[in-house]
Amino acid sequence: MTTMQIHLINPNTTVSMTEKIGEAATRIAAPGTTIVATNPRSGPVSIESHFDEAISAVGVAEEVLAGERENTDAYIIACFGDPGLLAARELTHAPVIGIAEAAFHMATLISTRFSIVTTLGRTGIIAEHLLQSYGFSHHCRRIRAAEIPVLDLEESKNQALDRIIEECLRAKAEDNIGAIVLGCGGMADLRQQIQKAVGLPIVEGVTAAVKLAESLVSLQLGTSKHGDLDYPRPKAFTGQFEHLSQRTY
Amino acid sequence: MTTMQIHLINPNTTVSMTEKIGEAATRIAAPGTTIVATNPRSGPVSIESHFDEAISAVGVAEEVLAGERENTDAYIIACFGDPGLLAARELTHAPVIGIAEAAFHMATLISTRFSIVTTLGRTGIIAEHLLQSYGFSHHCRRIRAAEIPVLDLEESKNQALDRIIEECLRAKAEDNIGAIVLGCGGMADLRQQIQKAVGLPIVEGVTAAVKLAESLVSLQLGTSKHGDLDYPRPKAFTGQFEHLSQRTY
Amino acid sequence: MTTMQIHLINPNTTVSMTEKIGEAATRIAAPGTTIVATNPRSGPVSIESHFDEAISAVGVAEEVLAGERENTDAYIIACFGDPGLLAARELTHAPVIGIAEAAFHMATLISTRFSIVTTLGRTGIIAEHLLQSYGFSHHCRRIRAAEIPVLDLEESKNQALDRIIEECLRAKAEDNIGAIVLGCGGMADLRQQIQKAVGLPIVEGVTAAVKLAESLVSLQLGTSKHGDLDYPRPKAFTGQFEHLSQRTY
Amino acid sequence: MTTMQIHLINPNTTVSMTEKIGEAATRIAAPGTTIVATNPRSGPVSIESHFDEAISAVGVAEEVLAGERENTDAYIIACFGDPGLLAARELTHAPVIGIAEAAFHMATLISTRFSIVTTLGRTGIIAEHLLQSYGFSHHCRRIRAAEIPVLDLEESKNQALDRIIEECLRAKAEDNIGAIVLGCGGMADLRQQIQKAVGLPIVEGVTAAVKLAESLVSLQLGTSKHGDLDYPRPKAFTGQFEHLSQRTY
Amino acid sequence: MTTMQIHLINPNTTVSMTEKIGEAATRIAAPGTTIVATNPRSGPVSIESHFDEAISAVGVAEEVLAGERENTDAYIIACFGDPGLLAARELTHAPVIGIAEAAFHMATLISTRFSIVTTLGRTGIIAEHLLQSYGFSHHCRRIRAAEIPVLDLEESKNQALDRIIEECLRAKAEDNIGAIVLGCGGMADLRQQIQKAVGLPIVEGVTAAVKLAESLVSLQLGTSKHGDLDYPRPKAFTGQFEHLSQRTY
Amino acid sequence: MTTMQIHLINPNTTVSMTEKIGEAATRIAAPGTTIVATNPRSGPVSIESHFDEAISAVGVAEEVLAGERENTDAYIIACFGDPGLLAARELTHAPVIGIAEAAFHMATLISTRFSIVTTLGRTGIIAEHLLQSYGFSHHCRRIRAAEIPVLDLEESKNQALDRIIEECLRAKAEDNIGAIVLGCGGMADLRQQIQKAVGLPIVEGVTAAVKLAESLVSLQLGTSKHGDLDYPRPKAFTGQFEHLSQRTY
Repeated sequence: MTTMQIHLINPNTTVSMTEKIGEAATRIAAPGTTIVATNPRSGPVSIESHFDEAISAVGVAEEVLAGERENTDAYIIACFGDPGLLAARELTHAPVIGIAEAAFHMATLISTRFSIVTTLGRTGIIAEHLLQSYGFSHHCRRIRAAEIPVLDLEESKNQALDRIIEECLRAKAEDNIGAIVLGCGGMADLRQQIQKAVGLPIVEGVTAAVKLAESLVSLQLGTSKHGDLDYPRPKAFTGQFEHLSQRTY
Repeated sequence: MTTMQIHLINPNTTVSMTEKIGEAATRIAAPGTTIVATNPRSGPVSIESHFDEAISAVGVAEEVLAGERENTDAYIIACFGDPGLLAARELTHAPVIGIAEAAFHMATLISTRFSIVTTLGRTGIIAEHLLQSYGFSHHCRRIRAAEIPVLDLEESKNQALDRIIEECLRAKAEDNIGAIVLGCGGMADLRQQIQKAVGLPIVEGVTAAVKLAESLVSLQLGTSKHGDLDYPRPKAFTGQFEHLSQRTY
Repeated sequence: MTTMQIHLINPNTTVSMTEKIGEAATRIAAPGTTIVATNPRSGPVSIESHFDEAISAVGVAEEVLAGERENTDAYIIACFGDPGLLAARELTHAPVIGIAEAAFHMATLISTRFSIVTTLGRTGIIAEHLLQSYGFSHHCRRIRAAEIPVLDLEESKNQALDRIIEECLRAKAEDNIGAIVLGCGGMADLRQQIQKAVGLPIVEGVTAAVKLAESLVSLQLGTSKHGDLDYPRPKAFTGQFEHLSQRTY
Repeated sequence: MTTMQIHLINPNTTVSMTEKIGEAATRIAAPGTTIVATNPRSGPVSIESHFDEAISAVGVAEEVLAGERENTDAYIIACFGDPGLLAARELTHAPVIGIAEAAFHMATLISTRFSIVTTLGRTGIIAEHLLQSYGFSHHCRRIRAAEIPVLDLEESKNQALDRIIEECLRAKAEDNIGAIVLGCGGMADLRQQIQKAVGLPIVEGVTAAVKLAESLVSLQLGTSKHGDLDYPRPKAFTGQFEHLSQRTY
Repeated sequence: MTTMQIHLINPNTTVSMTEKIGEAATRIAAPGTTIVATNPRSGPVSIESHFDEAISAVGVAEEVLAGERENTDAYIIACFGDPGLLAARELTHAPVIGIAEAAFHMATLISTRFSIVTTLGRTGIIAEHLLQSYGFSHHCRRIRAAEIPVLDLEESKNQALDRIIEECLRAKAEDNIGAIVLGCGGMADLRQQIQKAVGLPIVEGVTAAVKLAESLVSLQLGTSKHGDLDYPRPKAFTGQFEHLSQRTY
Repeated sequence: MTTMQIHLINPNTTVSMTEKIGEAATRIAAPGTTIVATNPRSGPVSIESHFDEAISAVGVAEEVLAGERENTDAYIIACFGDPGLLAARELTHAPVIGIAEAAFHMATLISTRFSIVTTLGRTGIIAEHLLQSYGFSHHCRRIRAAEIPVLDLEESKNQALDRIIEECLRAKAEDNIGAIVLGCGGMADLRQQIQKAVGLPIVEGVTAAVKLAESLVSLQLGTSKHGDLDYPRPKAFTGQFEHLSQRTY
């Protein structure tokens, strides 16, 4: 049995969400896998814009740097925009998985076309950009929003669940799809309920990412240090980022 | 510990290759996973053309139909052209993974761009079509061929290995890539040797597919039966395919 | 006057459909052209899924191999998914035309954008894949289904015709198109009636393919034997496919 | 036997080229087909730039308007940039074929990938734009130029032929292709010699267009008058174009 | 202060429209910029089809040739189809800007996705082709038409304005966009009114092109004369275009 | 004369580079334009990786927030990866321009195809991603690197210039292009020298961005606040980012 430690990074700073995501990850993890769920000390309490994403990417990087001081075998970035993904990959030879990409990969393995159901409509553009960059644009029929703020998943869970299921049913009826991707890390604990209510395969990124991370570790495949994901060149950083100076990762 | 049975289908009929692939799969499999490696009774001894692929797809389908009578949790199609993949998916609610797609997915998780090193140049077009259909065209810098027939991987293994390593080194030097995808199921046992010799992450499809299959089973995600991967409509088949008639899969 | 023999292969095994398609082809053929319409002895009675397609591709290949023993000048694969097209091309230096590609090519010559009206919605994904592979995705506005099983075109012809016309009229009204492509070989005899009822150019693949096949023969252009459509390398086949062994095509 | 009249328009004003192209077209035409080869009275003697193209498009339109006063069944625009193609289509319900598109369509029917060998490198961008617009970009591996001015095909035919063959042989050796498309209408009479010398299928647009035009006429498919290729709205034209005013085409 | 002369070419021959466009351009121009607004002597009074475009391209080229005899620093082609754009670029080392491209560029700088509102639906295909060629297809959500002839912008201005605003409001409500591009040069004077009524950034091409032209002149960036936009090779022209012969631009 | 204030943000913290870029911007600015060139207090001294970019995006956002307290009319992000561009756009209704996008836009207005010459090869992937996201992939023939660290542009300027010119000359000779885009803000003062030495239009992003920013301000076009670039929803931030909490931008 392979034993490994996966560092699951919730890029926002809402501890209850970190715990919830950590539990969902632990439930799906293999027996030998330890999930270490953390969130940055600094950053937004939820991620619902490009700005929130940009700020959160610093915390993601800090968490990876912290993880590198432990025996971390793989990292997961548990926000659907995959904030800081390529930066994080540069900082480690371990694999780093974003939950959006994880969900997209899994969805294409069980269906020919899928839709995304996310929280707020304004974040749809983030998913559009990821789909294009990863190559999945033509697999995704439609990006739908339940129009619920992320923290409602913590605070008004039942109402939020109802809205998500409603939108998923609409997707099933209208979008000519085989699966639905849930577009927020905060939905990690809702997959089974939604799947039951909707009657379609529901792909959720946190759980998908755990399995992909375990897979890469088993395969002894880590982030390539040849070429453009190599460790950053050491250099000076100033001000509040001075501690990042001259690192030899 | 999840226990599961993965039916690994070698689409060609060369038993020694089936065994070799089965062993590579078994080595990488999780403790609870049983690999059942088979090949069709009927079909080509190697797959090196569209024609070989077309014939082999029948055998793949027959193997899936056989697998459905056992407690099969997932299927792998262990030929780099992913022959019969969508047909196989229609026949089961279990997940079905092709080794080309498995390798592509994994390669994009650890690098931004990769090259493929395959056996014969004439099969490059098959990889091109798969990359386009799956959405990975822009992730692949170049498709290279070692120009060795598939069965040389059985019969002249050392020479074949040398040729593959040579081509991989050329890819590393010239292609501006972070990883290499091996373009033939028959290379399943060579990954580690090649990786050592080349000094780049080498992604191999059989092993990648085992982990993806295990992942999907753990996630309780199977082939969607909603829409275009639903079971085929029952109907009459004639002649040598009469036994396929009126199945209610 | 060029005389030539075109082998029209109906990939399914419904003889009445073969005859109907053969007649439609003969009606449109040039004076010097002989249409030989056949179907495989073995295979599905209709093609409505990836699985049906995969099985039918064997029959297509067998028919081409048979055709090679006659004086065949060109082949047509008369099922809208173009099953076995590239495999068939490898087996001959004669041109091989699929009816889907034939219809797409012709439609782009007389309109800037078209829609497809096919039989069952679940086969839409097959057309999507072909459009992408051939390069016509942006020419096709929408894939519509009349939701009639293929054999209804034989058995409930009038009702089927009504449904198709209805869907075509909807396409004309809603899709901002100049032409409609009929998405099933079994509609070969309906083109004129539909065109009359709809008032748009209706492109039908069987008839289109006959003219393209004649064109290529006249131009003395056959399937390229340089590179990836060259004859398959001779090799052993086992079991029910043993007769394919060591062919030197 | 279908009888028809195809109006072959050489968009440049070099009469010797018009005759040569007309002869090539006549040689390939079916027994019932009459080729009427003309060129505009006004325009450039060769087309080697966007500017030459723009001017020549007027002549093409004038020729179509003239053709509409005869019993024209189809039009061919015999310059590889397909100048004025969509404008021409608006002016008639007959089919209009450009020789570049004709060649591309035919090339994809007999090979998976092709290269273009054209006259001057600077016209390569025109071919790039056409490939993208028509959807064939991924079928074309490379655009090559023999770097000969168009009229050299008239005046230094043998040298020109040598240069073209040389470039075609380079394409065959280096481009991983199955066919070559000749990128100039003035090469219409050279196809067979080049094909013999190069040993690859050589696709030439004038001859290809004749067969496509005949095909569409036989199929009773003309330019769609529904939507964006409908006749232009009648209106006033001024100055030297006043004669185009208020036409009711 | 940079002084410069911009030659604004209205490709149609309606003088009132030329004046209106010229005034809109002058209002937005920098203090040192002189706008010279002209239209060809010969051509269509409005441009609403590929045919109108093709004819107008001659006038555009003639205007550029005339402009080259003055001290012209930049050219603008003030019709939304950018007729004759590449031809015009060949004729000068000054920059040449089409108003469609100008509007697209500006729209992508202030929004992630936009829609186009144009005059007649049949011209939508022209915008589609431009979007694809320029690379903006995925930035444009939808092309909408107010279904008003171009000259209604002159003759029934208020009704036309109402229709345009109506369609813009529909775009705002339904298209998930951040900006709207006006799809006709004749709307140059309506931008502010529409923007006020709609409450979205409205991008208009004439004004956008003036600023881009000024920008390029300030940057001392002119049309590249290296490669495929170099001056056309001098050659003979016949008939009404004889005056274009043997130019050495 | 429009007066305006453009806030030019150098995302790295090397003051000498900020000054140099500021001077280049001031030289090209219109008479009424004031350039305020700043850099973040905190961040990397140069940006040569995804990690450097991610950290720098925070500083970019902070600078925009600071700019919002002044009378800022437009922002420029003066690093070729356009770090934090969409985040910055959310924070203001003023236009925000990245220098990479600025250069790409300008390059496509004066040439049909261009190459990029950047500093380090490893940053090429950043340019690739931007080209794809903006829609310019097919306009860029090749991304080349002079393989000089960014700060060499400060410290070994002459050697760096030589290397850049060398690579530009290679691009001119080999890439079939009409223009070259300089791939680093630190090259802002070298454009004219390089252009002189290379004999091709050289497009540089800082200067291009100044003119685009001025253009948008003149056009009264600011970042759309409708939809996905609207101000971020106010929320709590923790730790070192607490000062960003509950802003109502």
